[in-house]
Amino acid sequence: MDNYEGSDPWNTSSNAWTKDDDHVVSTTNSEPSLNGISGEFNTLNFSTPLDTNEEDTGFLPTNDVLEESIWDDSRNPLGATGMSQTPNIAANETVIDKNDARDQNIEESEADLLDWTNNVRKTYRPLDADIIIIEEIPEREGLLFKHANYLVKHLIALPSTSPSEERTVVRRYSDFLWLREILLKRYPFRMIPELPPKRIGSQNADQLFLKKRRIGLSRFINLVMKHPKLSNDDLVLTFLTVRTDLTSWRKQATYDTSNEFADKKISQEFMKMWKKEFAEQWNQAASCIDTSMELWYRITLLLERHEKRIMQMVHERNFFETLVDNFSEVTPKLYPVQQNDTILDINNNLSIIKKHLETTSSICKQETEEISGTLSPKFKIFTDILLSLRSLFERYKIMAANNVVELQRHVELNKEKLESMKGKPDVSGAEYDRIKKIIQKDRRSIIEQSNRAWLIRQCILEEFTIFQETQFLITRAFQDWAKLNSNHAGLKLNEWEKLVTSIMDMPISRE
Amino acid sequence: MDNYEGSDPWNTSSNAWTKDDDHVVSTTNSEPSLNGISGEFNTLNFSTPLDTNEEDTGFLPTNDVLEESIWDDSRNPLGATGMSQTPNIAANETVIDKNDARDQNIEESEADLLDWTNNVRKTYRPLDADIIIIEEIPEREGLLFKHANYLVKHLIALPSTSPSEERTVVRRYSDFLWLREILLKRYPFRMIPELPPKRIGSQNADQLFLKKRRIGLSRFINLVMKHPKLSNDDLVLTFLTVRTDLTSWRKQATYDTSNEFADKKISQEFMKMWKKEFAEQWNQAASCIDTSMELWYRITLLLERHEKRIMQMVHERNFFETLVDNFSEVTPKLYPVQQNDTILDINNNLSIIKKHLETTSSICKQETEEISGTLSPKFKIFTDILLSLRSLFERYKIMAANNVVELQRHVELNKEKLESMKGKPDVSGAEYDRIKKIIQKDRRSIIEQSNRAWLIRQCILEEFTIFQETQFLITRAFQDWAKLNSNHAGLKLNEWEKLVTSIMDMPISRE
Repeated sequence: MDNYEGSDPWNTSSNAWTKDDDHVVSTTNSEPSLNGISGEFNTLNFSTPLDTNEEDTGFLPTNDVLEESIWDDSRNPLGATGMSQTPNIAANETVIDKNDARDQNIEESEADLLDWTNNVRKTYRPLDADIIIIEEIPEREGLLFKHANYLVKHLIALPSTSPSEERTVVRRYSDFLWLREILLKRYPFRMIPELPPKRIGSQNADQLFLKKRRIGLSRFINLVMKHPKLSNDDLVLTFLTVRTDLTSWRKQATYDTSNEFADKKISQEFMKMWKKEFAEQWNQAASCIDTSMELWYRITLLLERHEKRIMQMVHERNFFETLVDNFSEVTPKLYPVQQNDTILDINNNLSIIKKHLETTSSICKQETEEISGTLSPKFKIFTDILLSLRSLFERYKIMAANNVVELQRHVELNKEKLESMKGKPDVSGAEYDRIKKIIQKDRRSIIEQSNRAWLIRQCILEEFTIFQETQFLITRAFQDWAKLNSNHAGLKLNEWEKLVTSIMDMPISRE
Repeated sequence: MDNYEGSDPWNTSSNAWTKDDDHVVSTTNSEPSLNGISGEFNTLNFSTPLDTNEEDTGFLPTNDVLEESIWDDSRNPLGATGMSQTPNIAANETVIDKNDARDQNIEESEADLLDWTNNVRKTYRPLDADIIIIEEIPEREGLLFKHANYLVKHLIALPSTSPSEERTVVRRYSDFLWLREILLKRYPFRMIPELPPKRIGSQNADQLFLKKRRIGLSRFINLVMKHPKLSNDDLVLTFLTVRTDLTSWRKQATYDTSNEFADKKISQEFMKMWKKEFAEQWNQAASCIDTSMELWYRITLLLERHEKRIMQMVHERNFFETLVDNFSEVTPKLYPVQQNDTILDINNNLSIIKKHLETTSSICKQETEEISGTLSPKFKIFTDILLSLRSLFERYKIMAANNVVELQRHVELNKEKLESMKGKPDVSGAEYDRIKKIIQKDRRSIIEQSNRAWLIRQCILEEFTIFQETQFLITRAFQDWAKLNSNHAGLKLNEWEKLVTSIMDMPISRE
């Protein structure tokens, strides 16, 4: 786990943004920096357009460039026509005192933000029970290469599908793989859960491995169904309901895999609502995701190791039991009854001890089953979510980049060229028009990329907002952990107290 | 551990004794067989002496030979003069009905046996607290080869030594070795405890090894001091009280190392009291000593492994604690407080969990210290005693053999020779006398060996009788084991219940 801090593009120290400069162009490489800089972004206060007669491109980027980082708060030139715009402050409105209006705006956007946040939060309930059960179908299919089939059953009616009695479909591992690839294409900036490995080494028939894989698939699909966006995806619902063999269905069906932003425009409300600290929070989370993953993974590992320890103790208790049993067979030879009948009493107590070992051994066995069956999953679901968040950070690093800054520099240069061409007789009209077209093309691209950048921003804020609900998984995990341990400590104490009482009269002397 | 049964000379099946034959000569090799055969041994009913005028050798062995096995019940010719003899039934006593007298005798010897047994039992209290403490003196002595010195302190006044304030002497490992060799010479047919190894491989400076060695020396000397015979040995008391350097004392002192039988005669009471089932009991115990050792040794090993498991759990809890601590540092970055103040509450509960882990970890640590400090020794003392009993069986196999049978055969042959020489004129008187001398010499040897055999019998019955008291060590070991586990199960339950209550309000949702 390389130290994210070091090579972390989000790391403000390695990023030339400085708190006080405004509109400073980031000197890092083209990778997007989520770092917000100071300077209140006032989405309403659009500067005058570059060229009033450029209607077709609406408000065009002026020198208040949208820095590479879509998270930068420098003024945003967006306002391209056709985008849902909050009604512009009517030109002829009396100019309210600029600060009052501004405070009033902030209050409004705070309220909007709170509503927006609460609405988003409500859509995500990670503590809810799983609604999908996966069972492995015993006999394995396939001529040459045998593969495992799974019964995938949804326990409740699925959104936007006609409720049918039959809620079970048969799927194989590659169907899950296909589904995940679809989700990644459609929702690259969402928390897409990971899949368990198809095989480990050449191992894909070993029972334990298959059991773990089935559990992993179940965790994957249930996390998908807990996600507000993914759970409503038509192909997810197809995956869960289409009763035919999905592999063949996939080959002949046509479906759209474009990402969720396709022909969407950012809303003014969101732009108004946006606050720079979201970027800082996002950056902070990104900076500690690996450490958190590592720590939580080790906590989960310790839990599993504790389970193994108890299992070892179960084996040792069984062995202890056999030893005590065998020992009670030889004692009458070491201590001939003719010499002392106390040995028979001692042997009776040895069988009480044996019984105790048997009982506590089954309690421990029960404990390990509960740990692996119910407790461990409560910890692992959180590991899965952290994993999906980390992958989201990684995808973000790769896919959220844009070259708006280069384009704007390119526009500036071309504008200067146009200026310098004005009034010169030997300048050809065609060249002048060619440069003008390039400028227009660059501007359209800037607008598209900026819109995409804003949509990504919104998407990621949604994901980060629903992620906040996962903190309660920590509570549930540790509360269940405490209850399980307390319950079993009670069962064990009860057995030990019974034993102390029942062997109290084990002969300790002849009197 | 070779299977004792197979090569076991005590094994009746490999021994030609058969239940119904009386006085059958054992055809096994000269190794002593502890097997008793049927036929009530009547110590009182001596058959008439071989040759009435052989006063000087008193009652001489007749054809009722004492089989190789000192345990054989065939009539015993012993009655050599000078031995404390129960008053012989006065020749002129009216002959009471032989069976009545015999029953009455049996009752008497039963009563005697019970007294004898109880008296022997009282002298051995293996459950008593140790009276000797051994501490290692830090600085190691010796020019070239450094050796460890030990402070050997007796906590109570020692038998037959003038009570002095100063109860501490300084001893080194080789002094213990010397003492054990003395005991083996003097008491070959007693349960002499084993010594811990001087070194393991080249290892004799490693702290853990030295600690185990010190504990082993302490177990050795305390078992010696619990033994009724060994604890009264003058050289044992010298070892514990002579304040000078024992190594030099040993070199210049003269002391007797002959065994305890030297010039002792077996008592008639004991011979009367003897019962053939003691041999069977002794044989039975010998037949299962290895199995018992193996079983008890594994029980003790499981106990130590349980201790190690708990120690592993202590390390894992400490590690768990650190993980939880570190995790609570990253949570505010994953869950920015601005978005939710619940994370602070979750973190408070994480520190409660951390405190709980710390407390339960120290409880577990305490548990391991009690297991190794007080519980394990309660099991190991029994292992030591079984070891000393097994070594006694082995020494017995080697040292208790006698060649009485060969001697008796030799006597028969020579007697026949004498008979055949009687009435023959050409027989030289010197040859006749020579043969007669050989017969007398053989007879004296038969008497000495028979007496030694009886003394060994008595000694071993004493040891086997005191060994019977060790069954109560089994009780104490398991009762202490149950109490310790019950006590710690209670402490742990208490902590878990406290934790369940205190993290009950850990935020599980925003409401």
